[in-house]
Formats: sequence, C-alpha cells, structure tokens
Amino acid sequence: MLGGGSWATALTKILSENGSRVHWWMRGKDDVQHLLRTRHNPRYLSSVAHDLDRVRPTTDLKEAVAAADWLVLAVPAAFVQGALDKLDRDALKGKRVISAIKGMIPGKNVLVTDYVAERFRLPHTRLGVVAGPCHAEEVALEKQSYLTIGSPDAELAEDFCRLLRNRYVKANPASDLDGIEYCAVMKNIIALTGGIAHGLGYGDNFQAVLVSNAVQEMRRFAHALNPQPRDLSGSAYLGDLLVTAYSQFSRNRTFGSMVGRGYSVKSAQLEMNMIAEGYYAVKSIHEINRKLQVAMPITAAAYNILYEKIAPAIEIELLKEKLK
Amino acid sequence: MLGGGSWATALTKILSENGSRVHWWMRGKDDVQHLLRTRHNPRYLSSVAHDLDRVRPTTDLKEAVAAADWLVLAVPAAFVQGALDKLDRDALKGKRVISAIKGMIPGKNVLVTDYVAERFRLPHTRLGVVAGPCHAEEVALEKQSYLTIGSPDAELAEDFCRLLRNRYVKANPASDLDGIEYCAVMKNIIALTGGIAHGLGYGDNFQAVLVSNAVQEMRRFAHALNPQPRDLSGSAYLGDLLVTAYSQFSRNRTFGSMVGRGYSVKSAQLEMNMIAEGYYAVKSIHEINRKLQVAMPITAAAYNILYEKIAPAIEIELLKEKLK
Repeated sequence: MLGGGSWATALTKILSENGSRVHWWMRGKDDVQHLLRTRHNPRYLSSVAHDLDRVRPTTDLKEAVAAADWLVLAVPAAFVQGALDKLDRDALKGKRVISAIKGMIPGKNVLVTDYVAERFRLPHTRLGVVAGPCHAEEVALEKQSYLTIGSPDAELAEDFCRLLRNRYVKANPASDLDGIEYCAVMKNIIALTGGIAHGLGYGDNFQAVLVSNAVQEMRRFAHALNPQPRDLSGSAYLGDLLVTAYSQFSRNRTFGSMVGRGYSVKSAQLEMNMIAEGYYAVKSIHEINRKLQVAMPITAAAYNILYEKIAPAIEIELLKEKLK
Repeated sequence: MLGGGSWATALTKILSENGSRVHWWMRGKDDVQHLLRTRHNPRYLSSVAHDLDRVRPTTDLKEAVAAADWLVLAVPAAFVQGALDKLDRDALKGKRVISAIKGMIPGKNVLVTDYVAERFRLPHTRLGVVAGPCHAEEVALEKQSYLTIGSPDAELAEDFCRLLRNRYVKANPASDLDGIEYCAVMKNIIALTGGIAHGLGYGDNFQAVLVSNAVQEMRRFAHALNPQPRDLSGSAYLGDLLVTAYSQFSRNRTFGSMVGRGYSVKSAQLEMNMIAEGYYAVKSIHEINRKLQVAMPITAAAYNILYEKIAPAIEIELLKEKLK
C-alpha cells in the first residue's frame, strides 16, 4: 500500500482485516512511529486500530514493494511519479498493480495506470483501478460501501474483488479500465464547477442539471477515447460522481465555492492550505480534448475560469446557456 | 392553473410574469380572499407578490377552465380526479393540458395524462407534462432552473416552453410524454427508499449506489412500457431524481427516514400530518410491474416494507445484496 492518506488507510483496514498482509509505505517517519506505537494513523481515520500482525507500516519503499504481490497506489496524483521513480524499472515484474488514485500524472496528461505500464514495462492486463462511491470516512465506520475493480484482465479484477469483499464492502469486477479511471478524474472537475456555481449563488436546481449534463459529457469523452460499451449510470461512474458532487466535505467543491465567491485561485489554495485535485484535472482533460474535440462545456468553463482568468459569473452565465 | 400549492404558485409566477393571464383555481375561499387582498398566497411561496392584473384567483373551477386555452394541473395526485370529475366531458374540447403532477391517479394505476385523455376524450397530442429538477422555492428566489415539456406533439411542447422561458427558466421540449411522467413518479419511490436506508444508518456511499441503481431500474421500467429511445441521464430524468433524492426537505425522504427509524407507516403519516406521494407511487408502480416483470429491486423493497410489513432492516439488507 503506497500512501498514508485517508483512502490508503481505509483500504489498508479492509484488506488487512480480511487477512491480507499489508506492507504500508508512507513518507512520514513520525507517522510510522506513531502507528507502530499506538496502532492508529495519527492523521487520517485515526479511530481505526490496525492489526500490526498484518499491517507493517514503513518508510522503506523498496522493501515494501519487494515484499508484495500486489501494489496499491493511493498517494495523491501529484506525488505518484516522485514515489515510483525511486523504484527500478524491473521492480514490479510479476506483480499486479491497482491504482486508487483519482487524478492524472501532473504535467503529463497521462493516466496513472498508463504511466505505470510504460515506466515498468507492464502489460495492462497486470493493472487495475479501484473506484467506487466511497468516502473513506464511511469505511472507517463500516458503513455499507460498493467498490468496482476495472481491469482488462477479468481474473485480476475478480481476484482483487475477493480481497476486498467483507460484511460491509461489496466489490464488482468490470472490464473498463480507462473509462473508469478517466471518469474518476472528471468527477472532481464537476464537483469543482458545482462549487463555483454554488459560490455564485446558483441553487440545487442548477446543481442537478449540471450533474445530469456532466454524465453526458463524461460519456462523450470516454466514448471518444475508447468506444467500448459502458453504462455511465453504473456505480463506478454516476455513483462515484454523486458521492463527490453532493458531498459537503469535498475539497474540490470547497475550492470551487471559494473561487465562485471571488477568491483568486492562488488565495483559495493558500486559504485551504492544499490544492484540490480537480484543479489539475481540468487542465489535463481540457488539453487531451484539444485533440478529441468532444463537446465538453463544463470542463471548458472550469478551464476558462481557473486558467484563463475569465470571471466566474460570466463563464457560468455562458455555461448555463449550453446546459439543458 | 389548478392547485394552490407551492408548485402551482411557482408556475403561476413564471407564466404570469411572462405575460400570460392565469385563471388560478384553488379550493380554499380564504386563500383566494387573502390573495385578492394582499397579492400573496398565504400558504406557499408567500414571498411572491402576484400581479393581479394577470393573475385571477378563484374557487370557481368551471369558470376558470372555460376561460383558459391551456389547463395546467398542479393539484396533488390524490385530488386530481375529484377536481376534474366536476367538469363536463366536453369541458376541455380544444384546450391543451399540461400535467405538473408527480403521481398517479390513486387506486387506478393510471398516469394523470392517460386519465385526462380518457375522461375528456382528448388525443395525447393535446397533452403534455412539465418536469424538471425544480424546487418551487428556488423559482420563488428566481434561481436558474431548467424545465422539460414532454409531449408527443412537438408544437405543443415548444409552445408551452415559450410561455415558460425567462431570465431564470430554460425550457426544452421532448417527445417522451409517458417516460418522463413515469420517472417523475418513480423518483419519489427512490427518495423514500433512500430515506428508509438513511433512517437505518446507511450512509452517503450507499445512497450514491442506490441512486445509480435507481436510474437503471427506471430505464428498464420505462423501456418495458414504451421502448422509445431516451437518455435517462437527461435533466428531466436524472436531474429530477437528484433534486428529490438529495433534498433535505423532501417529504418522501423524511417519511422514509421515519419508517427506517422504526415508526410504523401510520404513525409516520400522523406525525408528518400528510401522506408522502411516494407511498402511493410504490403501490402503483409495483402493481403495474406485476404484468411487466421487470427487475425492480428498489421498488419491490419499498413495497415489502410499506405494504407487506417486512422489517426495514431485513428488507434493506436483502436489497443491498441486489445492488452493485
């Protein structure tokens, strides 16, 4: 398990309580010490007591990777390249990799799984993505959740599902790796844009229309990239979008809301003391779409606001004419 | 305009401010008096000041109907038959009828438009339905909203759209009359069932999966009834579902939540001093589906809880196995 955040902590809980041994890599030495001493991650889902017979927190990335059959990537998208580039190109030979990252490699416009495939010369049949409508906080509370494992290899998908399934987690395999991964990226754009509209005073009626149009925008984009049949109303697509777009705690929504209320991008980022993943996603998806030329009015509006400094009120006013 | 509730009040505001003359029928003499004296509906959206040059409140149904080119039905589903049966069978000759009712004729399992067509011998080309993700309260606040007019007659749909469009209302025509009308009914079932799950302690992850599965359930049902092509992610379907299922103020959700927390159906109804429309919708849709035999696990679960007295905890536990 790569990453010390809330999603990494939730997945570690699920996997280890099901019997998997988890070599858990995180950057902070203090966090590892705290975990080894108290069984709790001091920063995320700290109510969860980890079973240290099965969970091995460490700051030694190479050792953790070497010991594992599966690699689960759950670091922020911004740090994944920095972490993985420390590994030899052969380090993942024979392993299977699941990405739990909802973002793209910054500055590269490349999906995390595509990056891993290229960097470590792995075929996509060794790769999968875990998606779901899944707040990590609800996993900590053991509330019923559903996850989807997308992979071109049906056996890999089913194998990882089996590692996840428990009393409160249902896991389903799917064949659509990149569609699921792109939609997980795009949902943050929608949450962010919904936040901008909210900050400008738009209400629930508009939000519902925005999300409906977003599903169509995601469908068009995924279809242009890879026209395999996929039902966008599935949990891994629409469900994941809903849990983000309707969350009061979404960082993307909060960030967007501040921009809508008049904060500059810079000052919103300073105020939040972090950068919302949707901020990068907007740029990547917009740039990829330069080639595809799919109608993506929501992504274009977010791009114009965040990167072209068009006033949010003007841009959302224009967007509103394009929705229906 | 038939009806004195919040949706009738919102539509009256939109239509009259656009220049239509609205003969506004409601049952309560006192409410009509209050409106004539103060310009405000005392019960619903009372902040809205109506222009009495264009808005004519009355308790005289026949007179109101006789004076109108369009009939807009916005009474609760439970009362529509009682109101309409006071009219002669020829009373709607030459008129066009728009239903804004999100329910079916009680005890009959018949859509409002089908009932009107039969009772008044009108072809369906004289009928339409207005749907939208649209809280009436947001119309009162003039927040941006989107409405869809569904009718087999494209000209009727476009004509009514034109009466609605203004600075804060976008209206779009659609050909799918019964699909939109059925989905508007079914969304209340989903909001109610979401409320039951919430009352039992299920969280946002489950809610997102429920809504995703609901879209698929609605698609299957609408397709079985009338297999015309329709995109369920449109505003009139998904949008309308979202604004209801994610509303904190939905009566269906509140009612379901009480049932989930252990109230009997009777005592929840007493406590709320009203009956949620979803309660009737469950029965109608479930009974219609006896013939169709479409997979409708959410509706079936709600039916078993509300009408077969199966314990909510058991029924939702079973439902949870069927979702994915």
